[in-house]
Amino acid sequence: MEFPCIDKIESRQRDLLAGPEPTYEKVVTGYSVYSHTEPFVCDHGGLLSRFDIAYESWGTLNSDKSNAILIHTGLSGSSHAHSHAKNTNPGWWEKFIGPGLAIDTNKYFVMCTNVIGGCYGSTGPGSVDPATGKRYATTFPLLTVNDMVRAQFHLLDHLGIQKLHASVGSSMGGMQSLCAAALHSERVGRLITISACARSHPYSIALRFAQRQVLMADPNFNRGFYYDSVPPHIGMKLAREIATVTYRSGPEWELRFGRRRRAPDTPPALCPDFLIETYLDHQSERFCLQYDANSLLYVSKAMDMFDISESVTQRLELQRSKAISELSANPDMQGSAANGTVCMHVNEQPQSKTGQSDLETDAEIMDDLVKGVKNAMQPTLVLGVQSDILFPVKQQKEIADILRRAGNKRVTYYELDAMYGHDTFLIDVANVGAAIKGHLENSIEP
Amino acid sequence: MEFPCIDKIESRQRDLLAGPEPTYEKVVTGYSVYSHTEPFVCDHGGLLSRFDIAYESWGTLNSDKSNAILIHTGLSGSSHAHSHAKNTNPGWWEKFIGPGLAIDTNKYFVMCTNVIGGCYGSTGPGSVDPATGKRYATTFPLLTVNDMVRAQFHLLDHLGIQKLHASVGSSMGGMQSLCAAALHSERVGRLITISACARSHPYSIALRFAQRQVLMADPNFNRGFYYDSVPPHIGMKLAREIATVTYRSGPEWELRFGRRRRAPDTPPALCPDFLIETYLDHQSERFCLQYDANSLLYVSKAMDMFDISESVTQRLELQRSKAISELSANPDMQGSAANGTVCMHVNEQPQSKTGQSDLETDAEIMDDLVKGVKNAMQPTLVLGVQSDILFPVKQQKEIADILRRAGNKRVTYYELDAMYGHDTFLIDVANVGAAIKGHLENSIEP
Repeated sequence: MEFPCIDKIESRQRDLLAGPEPTYEKVVTGYSVYSHTEPFVCDHGGLLSRFDIAYESWGTLNSDKSNAILIHTGLSGSSHAHSHAKNTNPGWWEKFIGPGLAIDTNKYFVMCTNVIGGCYGSTGPGSVDPATGKRYATTFPLLTVNDMVRAQFHLLDHLGIQKLHASVGSSMGGMQSLCAAALHSERVGRLITISACARSHPYSIALRFAQRQVLMADPNFNRGFYYDSVPPHIGMKLAREIATVTYRSGPEWELRFGRRRRAPDTPPALCPDFLIETYLDHQSERFCLQYDANSLLYVSKAMDMFDISESVTQRLELQRSKAISELSANPDMQGSAANGTVCMHVNEQPQSKTGQSDLETDAEIMDDLVKGVKNAMQPTLVLGVQSDILFPVKQQKEIADILRRAGNKRVTYYELDAMYGHDTFLIDVANVGAAIKGHLENSIEP
Repeated sequence: MEFPCIDKIESRQRDLLAGPEPTYEKVVTGYSVYSHTEPFVCDHGGLLSRFDIAYESWGTLNSDKSNAILIHTGLSGSSHAHSHAKNTNPGWWEKFIGPGLAIDTNKYFVMCTNVIGGCYGSTGPGSVDPATGKRYATTFPLLTVNDMVRAQFHLLDHLGIQKLHASVGSSMGGMQSLCAAALHSERVGRLITISACARSHPYSIALRFAQRQVLMADPNFNRGFYYDSVPPHIGMKLAREIATVTYRSGPEWELRFGRRRRAPDTPPALCPDFLIETYLDHQSERFCLQYDANSLLYVSKAMDMFDISESVTQRLELQRSKAISELSANPDMQGSAANGTVCMHVNEQPQSKTGQSDLETDAEIMDDLVKGVKNAMQPTLVLGVQSDILFPVKQQKEIADILRRAGNKRVTYYELDAMYGHDTFLIDVANVGAAIKGHLENSIEP
C-alpha cells in the first residue's frame, strides 16, 4: 500500500526544518493598526499591557459619524473583508460589500477588524509580550468574545464613533455582534447575527474540542512554543479537515462530489481517493501554514465559552473587576499579569446556575438568557440556515426568542433553505445579501 | 497554561516504550474459530491463502438447521454480542439477545462473527501472513463489505446452514446484511438493516477520512508497520474522539451534559474542561489500545466503498474473476497475491456510471441501485433514527425505496425519533428491540 499523503507531510516537515525560517508569519498587508497603549484586563483576569487591533474600512464616515457599520469575523477571519487600493485581493465578503451591494459603501462607512487573539495584525499569542520581549505563545491570557468586542469599542472610541449604525456578524462574528448589542447596547443601532448562537452548544464544543486535541497532539506544537521552530503544520491541517466537514453540508457534497473518485481506474487508497477527500485535503493544505495554531486554540476556546446569559456576564465582569482592583493595588503584578498568571490568582466565583449545574431547568436557562439580552432593544435580524450542523437553526431561533421575550419588538427571524451548511453566509450572496441590505436600509419605526 | 492531557499522552508513550511489549494484542476469549484453508480471493484482487473467522453463538440449531440468525457487527464490533459460559462479560447487544428477548435464543440459533479485517480473532492486518511469516500490516489486501459477507457464508457452509432465518445488522452490519440479502439472496430468509445505507454518502466518507488521516499522521503509525513497536495510540485516540462525535447527537448531549464544566471553579482550559470534553476523552482513552489501527483503516475504507448498485457489484465480480483466472494460470503468484500486490496487477475496469461520472443523473443512480437489489425479495425491516447524522434517515428511506421499486412487497420501514443518534441501535432496547422481534417472529405471507 502506498501512502503519498504521508510522504507529502514528511517532505514538508523536512522543508520546514531546512528552510530559512518558519512560514507562520503571514504576508498580510494594507490594513490599518490602532494601538491601544493602556492596560487591557481580560474577563478571566489576564492582562495585556497594550494591544494592537488591525482594521480595514470602506466608504466614507459622514460628518456626524453616524453611518459606521462594524463587521465581525468568524474564527479565522482577517480584517480583509473587501478589496481596496492597499490590498486588491478579494476579501472574504467581497461580493457583500461595495457600492450598491448588500452593505452599501455609498451609504455606509464599513469597518472590519481582526479580533484580538488573531494572527492577522492584531495582538495575539504570536505577538511579542512587552514584559518579556518574547512571543506570548500559550502565556497569552485566556480571551472571551466579550474581550474581543471590548477591544473593538476602544478602536471605535479612537475613531470618535459613538454609535454604530449596525453591528453585523456571522458565526463567531454573530456572537460578537450579539455581545455588542447586549453589553454595549447604547452604541449599537441595529443588530445582525447570522448562523451564530446565544450560547455554544455541547455538540459544537465537542467538534472544536476534537480539532484542538488534534492540533495539540502534533509533536511540533510543543505546548505552544513553536515560534522558533517548525509550526504544528500537521495538526493544523488535520484540525482544518475536521472543521471543513462541519462548515459544509451533506446535501451540497452529494450534489458536488457524489461518490466520484479522483482516479477512477486505480485501486482504492487510504490517502485522498474520493473527490470529497481530495477537496478536504486541498482545503486543509492551504490553511495549515496560513493561520497561527495558538490563535486557533484561543479563539476557538473563546467560542466554546460564549454564553450571553446574565449570570455568566456578571461573573466575568466580577472577575475582571477583581483583577483590576488587584492590579491597581499592586502595579508590580502587571508583568506576571501579562503572562496570564493573574488568571491563577483570581479566585473565580462559584458557577452560576445557568449551564453549570445539574439543578438548572430549561426555564431557568432561558430566563437567564433573556436577562442577558435585556438591553438589546435594537432592530434585529437573525438569520439561520437549515443545513447548518455547527450552529443549527434551533440556536438561531433561540436568539430571536430570547430577544423577543426580553421585550424587543423589532426582531426579524429568517430561515434559509440553502444547502451550503454553516458556510452559507460566505456563499449565498443573493439570499444572505438581500436580508442584510433590507435590514440595514429599511426605515424601522421605534 | 497547563496541558495535563498532553502530559498524559507523553506518559503513556513512555510507558509503552518501556513496557514488556505493546498492548495491541487484545485479551478476547471464549469465541470459536472457523479456519478456511482454501485460498480466498478478494473483490479488489488481493488474496488470502487462508483465513480464520471468529464467531460466537447462542441458542440451539434445530434439526433442519432452519432457525439460524446471523448478526453482523458495526466497524469495531467483536463476535461477543452476548455473554455466555466461556465469556461472561456482557456483549455489545447483551439486552437484545437471550431467552424471550428481541432475538429469542429459545427459538433461534443466533450467531455473530468478527469480520475478516477485524482484530478480535478473525484474520486481519494484525495476523501473520503465511507467505512471509510476518504480520500483514498494510500489505493486507484491500477488503470490501462483500468480501466480509462471502467469508461469513463460508462459515455457514462449514456449519451446514444453507439458509438463514434472518440476517440482522446495524451500521456497517446493516451494509453486510443488505449485501447478504441482495447477493446471496437464496440463503437469507428475512432481512433487517438498521441505521445503514445502500451506498456510503460523501458526508460519511468525509468523516471517516478525517479519522483515518488523524490516525495515519501519528508518527508511531509508521505506514502500518508498528507491530514490533509502540502502536499509534495517540492517532487512535483522536480518531475515536471524532468518531464518537458522529455516533451520538446534539440533543442527547444538551440533555446529558449541557454546558457544565468538569471543575466549575477553575479557569477554563484547553485540555478536557467541559463535561462533554471529558466524556469524549474518556471514550477515546478506552479505545486507543483496544482496537488495531490497521483494522480501523481497512474496515472503515470498506465502509466508504460500499455501494449496492448493480454496476459496482458487477465490476467487483469481474475484478475477482480476473484475479482468480490469473492465479489459476500462475500458481506462483499466490505468494505475492497474499501481499496484496495482485491488486496492482489486476487491470481494473473503467468506472461504471453509478457514482463515478459527472454524467450520471439521480434517476440513473436510483435505477442502478434498484437493479443491485433485484434479488432481495425477503421480508425486510429497515429502521432509521431521525437524530442519526452519520447514516441519516434519508439513506434508510433509500434502502426501503430501492427494495420496493425492485418489486419487494414486504418491506417495512420505521423511523424512530430516539435522541441517541447513530448509536441508538446499541441503547434503545425498547424500540429497536420490539421492531426486530416483531419482524423476526411475525408470520409473513409470501
